[in-house]
Order: sequence, then structure tokens, then C-alpha cells
Amino acid sequence: MSPDLAGGFRDYGPTEMIAKQAILDTARRAFERFGFDPLETAAIQRTDVLTGGEADSQKIIFNVRGSKEKTSDLSLRFDLTVPLARFIAANPETPKPFKRYEIGRVWRGESPQAGRYREFLQADIDIVGSSSPAADAEIIALMDRALTDIGIEKFIIKINSRAILNALPKRAGFPDKDLWTALRIVDKMEKTGGKEVQRELAKAFNPSIASHIIEFFETLREPEKNKSFRGVKDVENIIQSAVRLGANKNRIIFDPTIVRGLSYYTGAVFETVLPDLPEIGSVFSGGRYDDLVMSFTGQRIPAVGSSLGVDRLFAALEKLGKIKPETSRAQVLILDLSPALMNEYFEFARLLRDAGINTVLSLGGRQTFQAQLGYALKRGIPFALVYGDDEKKKNTVAIKNLVKREQKEIPKDKLIEYFKK
Amino acid sequence: MSPDLAGGFRDYGPTEMIAKQAILDTARRAFERFGFDPLETAAIQRTDVLTGGEADSQKIIFNVRGSKEKTSDLSLRFDLTVPLARFIAANPETPKPFKRYEIGRVWRGESPQAGRYREFLQADIDIVGSSSPAADAEIIALMDRALTDIGIEKFIIKINSRAILNALPKRAGFPDKDLWTALRIVDKMEKTGGKEVQRELAKAFNPSIASHIIEFFETLREPEKNKSFRGVKDVENIIQSAVRLGANKNRIIFDPTIVRGLSYYTGAVFETVLPDLPEIGSVFSGGRYDDLVMSFTGQRIPAVGSSLGVDRLFAALEKLGKIKPETSRAQVLILDLSPALMNEYFEFARLLRDAGINTVLSLGGRQTFQAQLGYALKRGIPFALVYGDDEKKKNTVAIKNLVKREQKEIPKDKLIEYFKK
Repeated sequence: MSPDLAGGFRDYGPTEMIAKQAILDTARRAFERFGFDPLETAAIQRTDVLTGGEADSQKIIFNVRGSKEKTSDLSLRFDLTVPLARFIAANPETPKPFKRYEIGRVWRGESPQAGRYREFLQADIDIVGSSSPAADAEIIALMDRALTDIGIEKFIIKINSRAILNALPKRAGFPDKDLWTALRIVDKMEKTGGKEVQRELAKAFNPSIASHIIEFFETLREPEKNKSFRGVKDVENIIQSAVRLGANKNRIIFDPTIVRGLSYYTGAVFETVLPDLPEIGSVFSGGRYDDLVMSFTGQRIPAVGSSLGVDRLFAALEKLGKIKPETSRAQVLILDLSPALMNEYFEFARLLRDAGINTVLSLGGRQTFQAQLGYALKRGIPFALVYGDDEKKKNTVAIKNLVKREQKEIPKDKLIEYFKK
Repeated sequence: MSPDLAGGFRDYGPTEMIAKQAILDTARRAFERFGFDPLETAAIQRTDVLTGGEADSQKIIFNVRGSKEKTSDLSLRFDLTVPLARFIAANPETPKPFKRYEIGRVWRGESPQAGRYREFLQADIDIVGSSSPAADAEIIALMDRALTDIGIEKFIIKINSRAILNALPKRAGFPDKDLWTALRIVDKMEKTGGKEVQRELAKAFNPSIASHIIEFFETLREPEKNKSFRGVKDVENIIQSAVRLGANKNRIIFDPTIVRGLSYYTGAVFETVLPDLPEIGSVFSGGRYDDLVMSFTGQRIPAVGSSLGVDRLFAALEKLGKIKPETSRAQVLILDLSPALMNEYFEFARLLRDAGINTVLSLGGRQTFQAQLGYALKRGIPFALVYGDDEKKKNTVAIKNLVKREQKEIPKDKLIEYFKK
């Protein structure tokens, strides 16, 4: 049988996984520092819960069916926000504001395309039950903190607001219902440039409306003129609060052309780009969604949050050469030089591990000395413990430092002491 | 829309999740201490890879289908062992022995039954590429270490060997092909008792063979007589080595009636029971499977491993009253007493977080003092920071210890110092 993975899926081997785990541990620490607690939701949920009956969501999900069942109303979650809304609705006693983070996989049932994954890990932060702009600021400050702690030096968090965009139809003179048509075209600004956007807008509306739309966004970009637009001041206040909460003000900007697709956003929207890797897209995105929980409860519960695309960020760090090539967490390999000494090797392993040193026992069968050292080098284990008949006679152990390429012989009872330094 | 979860699935709220995360962190540390490195495999894989065409596996899987696709050859993994075997086959350059752990969800596409989950988290440890009994011993010693570190005081690791069981047909006088029929009946020994087992065996075979089978297992239980059975000494050697590696010898026993179902085991098999909660079943099970990787590579690559059922263990700890009711990781709530002081609250939050203190900013809108304290109590946040107009005038902050029910007023610039103690 061929051992191929299906298209759109990947494994993380030890080297990648050690680096990814470090990112996750760092993110978790930052999230908890900001007062967020962990939540874990079911990966498989009722399809109607996940999609809310929306055709857009239905298109991107994986349906799931027990192999003995003919039909199924279950699917894999495609984000962590909808399961959060469901949790809130099902657990009304949860103290609010509910600040939670969830780190988990999500799936997109699209056809596999070049470079697009169908399974990925997200790390989400959300505050449910607060309509305060300070909640938006907390999310942005934490996005800044987490990315900084992870070691990303250059990133820009772009902020816009649905409230600002909602004024576009009136200002440009087209019906409200065509707002998304206009925004989808404006969204291409960075990719295709202003001229192409104007041409497309003229085609979709007419040249006069196209000019008004372009003018709307140009005016928004001018700090002197945009104050009169509803929502601009709110975004600026959020940014100021985020900076007071510790975010670097050079990395947080108002960008009126951020028109993120998810239809559930109702207020601020966020996107995070890496200037050195624009092709990667946004690595940490979110916004305010005051109506989502209502679809389950009938009651409006305001919420704001953001989602870190861990695999996408990991790919970015790989491209930037920031993934440390640590191939193993193990620190010492105990060589197996004689079957008669096995019990002593076991004893060494026990002592080292009890002392907190990650230790591998050579288990490859009767391999040569060189082959065992080769294994340590391939796995990236920095030390080898050498104990053969000679050392036994002398009551010593030899420690090979495979990085510095040096060897040291020490009394057997000084072993732990040696590694503790 | 009703916010119900589908049957067989659950969410973990913050209180449970904090406890579960502590278990996982502890397990991970133990795994790495023993020289295991992390691996993460795709949750969705080709159905033929997962099942190997075996009807038994096909029955328990969830098929997965993109919502625009008519058919699909993809399924959710039902364990972490088959994805490991696939990884090894697809990455032949991986240094061996490959010692990896994987912590991840698996799914069983069975119909939901009372108390049986269809999604659960496993933490697996495996050594691939070593046929040494020392590898089996390493796995057992690590099972013992991990459970001890997690805080389980009473558990028994039971060990048996397929090699011993393979001798049963000849010894009892029935054809090899009926071995599993016999074992499935013997497996009920603990549940139904010896008499019922003998009756069922007599029905499946005949009274004479039934007696021989019972005798086979009775002899195996006698240390004086069982030495002549092929495989018994191997199991004893493994146990001795595990004890030398640090396992508690009172918790590791040879039990000939352990006849775990998974057909891919070829040597030792392990099971871990909690004597105080026999109904929970095995929480950490595994064995040696020397033929599994071969189904992908054609080449025999010996392997041994074990799988911790994290959710099952968690349920056990809940029943034993061992889950600490920590409802939040947050340490301080900054009360919002005046909109005019918001910038100062932001500043406090920044300072506390930079000092490593998990801090929540009150974001509930203009709530009363009491309501805000009530929120801290409900979430289990131990400290509240009180800063109103009075404190501002005096340049102080008041800290309420909600656990000890006492309050202390300190100079504003001593805030971090206070919490650092």
C-alpha cells in the first residue's frame, strides 16, 4: 500500500514540531498573561450549528459520516468562533465577559489546491460579552504581544471598521445591497492597483460612482479629512488604548481598505501582515461580531476576537529562516557497548532522567560504536555517554560532547553533577 | 437554532481545560525526559491507509467528504499508531530507533452510546525500529513515570505476550484459527467470572478443551510452573528492566488473561487499570507491533508503544476527586470604577502583565463595584485591584485578596513589588 498523504494535508516531523510547539507554548503564555482561559470544543458538530444554514459556510465544510450510517448531519468545524458561540449559548451561566483562548485544528472541505491546506491549526482569542472598545484594544494589544513574544520582528496590524464601510453606499450613491460587490473589488487594491480597481468599479457600477468610491477611500486615508467619517474616531481610540496596553504604535495602523470577508463581523476588523512576506497573507485576523451568538440564543451578546493561523505563521517563519533546526529535545544518548552492561545503562538512564535530563537509551541492537554516534548526530543529540568494560574497571564514564567534538572522562558518581552544569 | 452538541462529543470549559492542560504538560515533560520527540500527523488520511483494507477498522471510522464532492476516499484517524506507521514508511530517512510522542485527537465513527465518546484525545509513545526487549521496558517505565507524575497514586500495569497466547491452541487441542474465539471468551474472566467463562468455552469448543484452556491460564498464573511456557521469561525480563529504569515493581504485573483486541500486536501487550475504578477500563494500553509498518513498506520494522487515553484518565481523576477546581489562570482583576481612569487601568494592566502576572481588565461596561467583584469570584480570580478617585488622590492602590477576604492599601509604585511576593 502506498503511504501517501491526501492532498492538502501534512505531517510535522520532530524538527518542525519542536519549533511549532515552542510557538504554541509562547502564545499560550501570552494569552494567559492577558487573562484568557483555555477552552476546548468538539471538532465534530452538527452541520446546521456550524453553517447556520449559510450557503457560504456550507461550501467549505467537510461532512463526516460514521461508516455504518447512510446519512449524517455532522461536519468538521471550519473555525473556532462558531463552536465558541455555541458553547456560550449552551452554557448561559458562564461568567461574562468570557475571555477564552482555544488552540485547535480546523478543516476546510475545499478541493485541494497548490499550497492550500485543508487542515490547519488555529490559536484563537475572544472576549464574549463586552461591547467596550477596550475589549477590541485588549485583543489588538495581545495580538501584538503574542507575535512579539514568538519572535516576529516585522509585522503590521491593520484595523478598519464595518461602521466606516457601511457609509460607503450613501456617500458614493449606490444601493446598500451592493456594498459587498464594491468591497470585493476594492479588496484587490493591493494586488491589482488603483487603476484596475477603478476600471472594475466603473464596470460594476458606472464611472461616476467608481470615482466616488475611490474618493471615499482616498479621503479616509487622509488624517486631516477623515475625522468626519463615522467610525474613524472609534478606530483611532481603539488603537490608542491598544498602545497604552503595551502595543507598539508603529505596528498598528488604520487601513480603510481592509474589508475582510467574514459576514459575521459587525464592528472593527483586524488583519496582520508581514511586510517581508506579503504573499503569505494575514497571519492573525479577527474583528467584532456582535450578532453571532444571537443566532443560537436570540439574545444579542457582543463579542470580539482574533485568530492566529499557526501553520501559516510557521510557514512564514520557515521562509524567514527563523526556525531553529533543533532536531531533538533529547540531551544525552547512552551508548550500548556490551549486553553485560545493560543493567548499568538502565541505571544511568534512571539517574539522568530523575535529574531532569532528557535521555535516550541506545536500543538499536548490537550496533557499532560509530553507528550509535551517527544516530546521535542525525537526531541532533548533543551528548553521548560512553561506558564500556574499560570505564567500568576505572569506575568512570566518558562523556562525548558531539557539538564541541571533545570527550571528558569523569568519576561515575559525578555524572549528574557534570550535566547539572 | 438549538445549540446542542451531537451525541458522543463534549466541550471542555476553562475549569476542566486548565486541569487537562496540566495533565498534558506533565505527560509531555515525562515523554521528553525519556528521549521521545514530538510528531504531529494529519487527522484526515486516505481511508485505505487507515484501515489497511481491514473490515474491523472500516467499521469504526468516520468518513469525511468535502461538501461539494460526491464521493470521498478520506477518513478521520481512529488512532495515532497507523498514522505513525505511514509517516515512517513515507520518510525512510528518519533516524531509527524513532522515539516519538504524539498528543492528538482521534475519532470513532460508531453510533453514540451512553457514556461512550466518539472523539477523544490520546497521548501516544512509540519506539519504531527496535526489536530489543529494552524498548518494551522503556515504554513500561515511561507509562509508570507519566502516570506517577500526573498524580495517579494507585494503578496497575498488566503485561502479557502474544507469544505466550500463541501456544494456547496446541496446548489445549484446538485449531490455530480459533485462537481469537477462545481469547474473546477468556477476556470476560474479570467481568463474568471463571464459571461463566468455562461454560462459554465448553459451548464454543467442548468441555474437555474448555478445561484445558482454563488449566492453561491457571498454570500461567503459578510462578513455579509457568517458566516452561514460551514467552513467560521474556515478559519477566521486560518487567525487571522496567523496574531498573525506575518503574515501581509493585505496580507492574504479568497477567496472562490480558488479551487486548488490536490484531496488529505481535509481542508484549500492556494494559493499565485503576484498582479504585475498574469500570473505567484501561487508561494506558499498548504493545509490540512488528508487522504494521510492513504493510506500507514491505519491509519489517519492529515497533512497540502505548497510548494514554487522556479523556478517560481525566474522567477517572474527576471521579477520584483529583481535579483541582481552578476556574481561571488569571490572578488579578482590575476594577473599572470610573471612565476617567481608563487610561490608568490600561497602564496597570500593562505593568502587571509585563511583570508576568495574569491580569484581567474589567470590561463589563459600567458595572457596580459589587458586580465586578462578583465576576472575579465567579471566575475564581484571587485578587482585585481597586483604584478610584480616592486612591488616585492618595497615589495608592487597594488590593483585595478575595480568598483571604482582606484588603491592603499600598503606594501605587509598589504594585509590582506587592505581587512579586
